[in-house]
Amino acid sequence: MALIVQKFGGSSVADIDRIRNVANRVAEYRRRGDQVVVVVSAMKGVTDNLIEMAKSLMPVPSEREMDMLLSTGEQTTIALLAIALQSMDIPAASLTGAQAGIVTDGVHSKAKIRNITPRKIHALLDAGNVTIVAGFQGETSEGHITTLGRGGSDLTAIALASALKADLCQIYTDVDGVYTSDPRIVPTAKKLEEVSYDEMLELASLGAKVMQSRSVEFAKKFGVIFEVRSSLNDNPGTLVKEETQSMEGVVIRGVSLDKNQAKITLVGVPDEPGMAARVFQQLADSTINVDMIVQNVSHGSDTPATDLSFTIDKPDMARAQTVIDGLRDNINFVDVLADENIGKLSIVGVGMRSHSGIAAKVFEVLAGAGVNIQMISTSEIKISVVIGIEKAEEATRAVHDAFLD
Amino acid sequence: MALIVQKFGGSSVADIDRIRNVANRVAEYRRRGDQVVVVVSAMKGVTDNLIEMAKSLMPVPSEREMDMLLSTGEQTTIALLAIALQSMDIPAASLTGAQAGIVTDGVHSKAKIRNITPRKIHALLDAGNVTIVAGFQGETSEGHITTLGRGGSDLTAIALASALKADLCQIYTDVDGVYTSDPRIVPTAKKLEEVSYDEMLELASLGAKVMQSRSVEFAKKFGVIFEVRSSLNDNPGTLVKEETQSMEGVVIRGVSLDKNQAKITLVGVPDEPGMAARVFQQLADSTINVDMIVQNVSHGSDTPATDLSFTIDKPDMARAQTVIDGLRDNINFVDVLADENIGKLSIVGVGMRSHSGIAAKVFEVLAGAGVNIQMISTSEIKISVVIGIEKAEEATRAVHDAFLD
Repeated sequence: MALIVQKFGGSSVADIDRIRNVANRVAEYRRRGDQVVVVVSAMKGVTDNLIEMAKSLMPVPSEREMDMLLSTGEQTTIALLAIALQSMDIPAASLTGAQAGIVTDGVHSKAKIRNITPRKIHALLDAGNVTIVAGFQGETSEGHITTLGRGGSDLTAIALASALKADLCQIYTDVDGVYTSDPRIVPTAKKLEEVSYDEMLELASLGAKVMQSRSVEFAKKFGVIFEVRSSLNDNPGTLVKEETQSMEGVVIRGVSLDKNQAKITLVGVPDEPGMAARVFQQLADSTINVDMIVQNVSHGSDTPATDLSFTIDKPDMARAQTVIDGLRDNINFVDVLADENIGKLSIVGVGMRSHSGIAAKVFEVLAGAGVNIQMISTSEIKISVVIGIEKAEEATRAVHDAFLD
Repeated sequence: MALIVQKFGGSSVADIDRIRNVANRVAEYRRRGDQVVVVVSAMKGVTDNLIEMAKSLMPVPSEREMDMLLSTGEQTTIALLAIALQSMDIPAASLTGAQAGIVTDGVHSKAKIRNITPRKIHALLDAGNVTIVAGFQGETSEGHITTLGRGGSDLTAIALASALKADLCQIYTDVDGVYTSDPRIVPTAKKLEEVSYDEMLELASLGAKVMQSRSVEFAKKFGVIFEVRSSLNDNPGTLVKEETQSMEGVVIRGVSLDKNQAKITLVGVPDEPGMAARVFQQLADSTINVDMIVQNVSHGSDTPATDLSFTIDKPDMARAQTVIDGLRDNINFVDVLADENIGKLSIVGVGMRSHSGIAAKVFEVLAGAGVNIQMISTSEIKISVVIGIEKAEEATRAVHDAFLD
């Protein structure tokens, strides 16, 4: 008898029929004797409706009340899923995040889990119930309802798996698992049987939309092995776990393309201490997320100057330009260049640590495909390049097939 | 500075505009310096939608899970109302029933309030907030969510007014208060300035749909004075309170007509001990609510027999007839007569206690209107008669105008 935590997202419970499907899947595990804890999100669309109502009253509603409001979404799903299971003669009982013992800090709308006291979950499991927990939510130690922000339901599942010392944690989604690349761009992309936390983290932050980084980070920190798999079929998914020796034999785990970034270059920034700090502090104050940053050695003679390039999310472009314009008097840069027609191509693999020459091979493949590289940024297990959008997909296929086909 | 508890039902918060109206009204009290606790129901229609979803999964869903499901309705309203108040610069914070400290027994779907520990309410009030509490719900001492059943939000308001020692408890509804009769039937009906708990109880159980009996009983038990008034205008409502000397000077407080009852007569029931018990036990076991019961002295000589008449809610008629048919072998009654074309006319007033001749005058008025009386039942402060439906409204007007015009 295993203890399994299963998580189903909003599209898996979008309507009554899908809730019944989820119940069928859960019932299978329960019938073979496993103890099952199910974490669910709000039914697709429900959260958006609630947000719309609140915003019609006030453009920026208080976060405490938004948490009170939005937490009803998951609470609705848990009750309906419990009823669906009971209709199949499977004993089931639901718990809100607060009831499940999920205690968070007091940062409404993006609370962090502080600790979990799964007393009620154990009691319900011991009484033979499938226990259904509302994802995405908890309460402060003073008893105020909080929500965990984006990706919160995944986090609930992984944190519960850790607290319950579960034998297995399954994240059900609408894809079959983690792929070597986006199959819509790279037809030769293959599903990975396993991937390390670090690789998953890089992939997650690189546009492989499977999971938010924070859930993977949490899993890594507490050593929770989890499986990403499809709620639409019975195919085995991808196991995410600590790096193993065999993983290092594989140099490259995946290739991803992020077409949602834009590039800004400040030309001729005076080469004085504190310039970069000023730029990125102002951007951070405006909650603009900066991804890649590249600065070259300075050139010029009398007044040494350098070019500073960085990438941001495309939707933040207009706001970023306003911020930069405000800095013009403060920092005597020569010009600003903005480019939305870029793609960020990234190659990820823990094997890079022990293999040299990967970067060189990437650049060679790109050169062979006639692709000009605009920016380069590397980490221990990742190489990212910014290239023109017009050749981005072709470049992705070329790099993928050179390393992974 | 007064502490006021205000309750708004589902039609008063049916949509965003009405929630804004409620916020305006609450804000008025808050702005003049009162401390305000607001109790709200689910937005009209929301509860029915949730029930429909659950029933599409299972005809009779578990009551624990229904409580989990339905309690989201009020939770949505409290958050939206808090946001509406905040948009008017009124500090506001919401609490679920559980958070508000409402502890109930464990009878899901119709829980009884055991005690209230309004620690969080006091804290929020002391911090200057309008405090909004979800009606209709609480939690068991083990932390499971419960709902209070029909009329539960009124009960929440009255119980909170008691626990908080509020100066005033206002039940906002879509009528102006309690009337001497239904104005749609009796054009001369007048709004009552005040009414005693006992009169309100009789009126509540007699089809004056303003409030459920249990809330009035609770108010009576704990001496909570409350006002029933309209959420649509600023007219003073009706004050419900302990009987006063001046109330007794008024013989009749109101006249009500219940057209939702049906009559069953068992003809020739053997006059032996235990016959009535058998009939009504069987009906109770089938959760059929019996209202009036009339049995005459027996007649006949060799085998003394009697006629037993009682009234039930019209929708229970088919089920009641099945129960009665099942008793035919057990009780040798001669015949069953069923009649759905009846009305129950009731006259209520604490003044009856000290005035004689009221019944005689009622019968005289009915005779004068050519109305035949089928059943009579009296209590200390009430006279009810069952009459034919065809003359029921005319009879109501005649009795009302004879006593109250």
